Amino acid sequence: MRKTIIGVMGPGNNATNLDLENAYQLGKLIAQAGWVLLTGGRNEGVMDAASKGAKAANGLTVGILPSSDITTASLAVDIAIVTDLGNARNNINVLSSDVIIACGMGAGTASEIALALKANKKVILLNNDENSQDFFQSLAKNQVAIAQNPASAIELVTQFLADASI
Amino acid sequence: MRKTIIGVMGPGNNATNLDLENAYQLGKLIAQAGWVLLTGGRNEGVMDAASKGAKAANGLTVGILPSSDITTASLAVDIAIVTDLGNARNNINVLSSDVIIACGMGAGTASEIALALKANKKVILLNNDENSQDFFQSLAKNQVAIAQNPASAIELVTQFLADASI
Amino acid sequence: MRKTIIGVMGPGNNATNLDLENAYQLGKLIAQAGWVLLTGGRNEGVMDAASKGAKAANGLTVGILPSSDITTASLAVDIAIVTDLGNARNNINVLSSDVIIACGMGAGTASEIALALKANKKVILLNNDENSQDFFQSLAKNQVAIAQNPASAIELVTQFLADASI
Amino acid sequence: MRKTIIGVMGPGNNATNLDLENAYQLGKLIAQAGWVLLTGGRNEGVMDAASKGAKAANGLTVGILPSSDITTASLAVDIAIVTDLGNARNNINVLSSDVIIACGMGAGTASEIALALKANKKVILLNNDENSQDFFQSLAKNQVAIAQNPASAIELVTQFLADASI
Repeated sequence: MRKTIIGVMGPGNNATNLDLENAYQLGKLIAQAGWVLLTGGRNEGVMDAASKGAKAANGLTVGILPSSDITTASLAVDIAIVTDLGNARNNINVLSSDVIIACGMGAGTASEIALALKANKKVILLNNDENSQDFFQSLAKNQVAIAQNPASAIELVTQFLADASI
Repeated sequence: MRKTIIGVMGPGNNATNLDLENAYQLGKLIAQAGWVLLTGGRNEGVMDAASKGAKAANGLTVGILPSSDITTASLAVDIAIVTDLGNARNNINVLSSDVIIACGMGAGTASEIALALKANKKVILLNNDENSQDFFQSLAKNQVAIAQNPASAIELVTQFLADASI
Repeated sequence: MRKTIIGVMGPGNNATNLDLENAYQLGKLIAQAGWVLLTGGRNEGVMDAASKGAKAANGLTVGILPSSDITTASLAVDIAIVTDLGNARNNINVLSSDVIIACGMGAGTASEIALALKANKKVILLNNDENSQDFFQSLAKNQVAIAQNPASAIELVTQFLADASI
Repeated sequence: MRKTIIGVMGPGNNATNLDLENAYQLGKLIAQAGWVLLTGGRNEGVMDAASKGAKAANGLTVGILPSSDITTASLAVDIAIVTDLGNARNNINVLSSDVIIACGMGAGTASEIALALKANKKVILLNNDENSQDFFQSLAKNQVAIAQNPASAIELVTQFLADASI
């Protein structure tokens, strides 16, 4: 039976320390909730930190790699999906996730949020400035929620999943 | 020899009247400058209007279709590239364009701007609110320019092409 | 740590009864060996049968869906990767698999074998006629092996994995 | 109005001299017929030779590049579509072509023929051995035709286009 997949998107080598701490906590909490973690799969930034957090809690981790080079995968990824699609794989990241959490910001992350909204997915913004929040809410108010910390992001995920299953 | 391609991205059925007028003018001016117009190819909104403008000036138009259904193409598209990639094709739109003009705003357009910035492309914003402008400039200040009207957008394109060829 | 993924490719609604029986056995044996099963994910033919076999042995199943419609997924798929790429997803199927088993034949399966050979992957052919075997061996003799039944296919997988890890 | 696009697929650096001569002739004849030539776009083998032939006859050439590196494009390509999709772009090659000619053989070419058959396209085989011909005809007899030389391939294209327009 299909497992629930929660996507955590965020910067690679431009992630801030707070992004990395949040990502690790998110991964841990996602695993503890019994969900599968999905990230962009690379051995950097939010992708790597979230995957490590999930493994610390014995979770299952999926990584959707942009390149064809398996050595670019985070060592904390269990299931590496090798796309060789470059950033076109960002659309797969969001289509495969039941709910998306954007942890930090950058051009790649912004593309994932926008693609998620286009696909009618719910997106939770964590650790983003007000300008980013306003922008994405202006695109699709009902699909974007703001979380103050990882625990509240997970509460929002729980709520969105419950709404979807009614 | 490779032709210069200018991408015009913008909303489909949510385009405003001003978006459509601007898109038509952009298409016309792009054709008059001797460049090829590239759009998302569908028979709607900014894609369709820009393609019609380019054809009115005897330009060449390329459309990158998201679906596998050729009947969704704008009748003003000369070269239909049928991707069947859904919105993953947005990355092809921007990678194939020498410069990108975003005419209007929406989730799909936002994804194209973000993917363009990720690929180190120059993006010109036309008819977008201040919030959108601020957001994308915060992602990559040096790659984003603001145009007040189609003619000034074309001037910016000319300048970016000249900078790139030095 | 990255799990070993074995891909089973084969026809959807044109699968023969023998294809389906073989696929079910392959799925079961792959799960029993502790590997992850990867298929094209749909609720039909070899994809569905292999996934069911793997679940019967408590394995983990990944399905790479061509459409954006999650309801097209086999109920025996645990991790559904939603690509919306149409048959371009066939390349992801083979790039993500450590070894590929082609169970039965058809145009889609042929494209997967060819893409696998292009990516320097090992492919095991099961239940294919001599003409198919000759054709694919003529493309890349050292990458193509012929199996007489599911058990011998699994032996070949074991051998290829051992060769790769030296 | 949409232009008719004829795709010529074939090996890159493994093309034989006869493949290259045939590809050049095909490009020339396609241009003389007023059709657009589409290839995989790289500066090698059949893609390059066909594009050069088309330019020698003042045709229009489209190249669908697998990488994001524009410098890999054939200098005889007018419209470079930059996909960064690796070999997943092979599906775009065939979906965008009204008729496909396979000139020579290899793993990449085989994947394109198979994907074309999957998409219900007509494919003309030129300069392929009997085994290849038998294999692809066994997959979809009514979609595969055999040409003895470039001129007869073009006659078959003309016939297929006429059949499609009835």
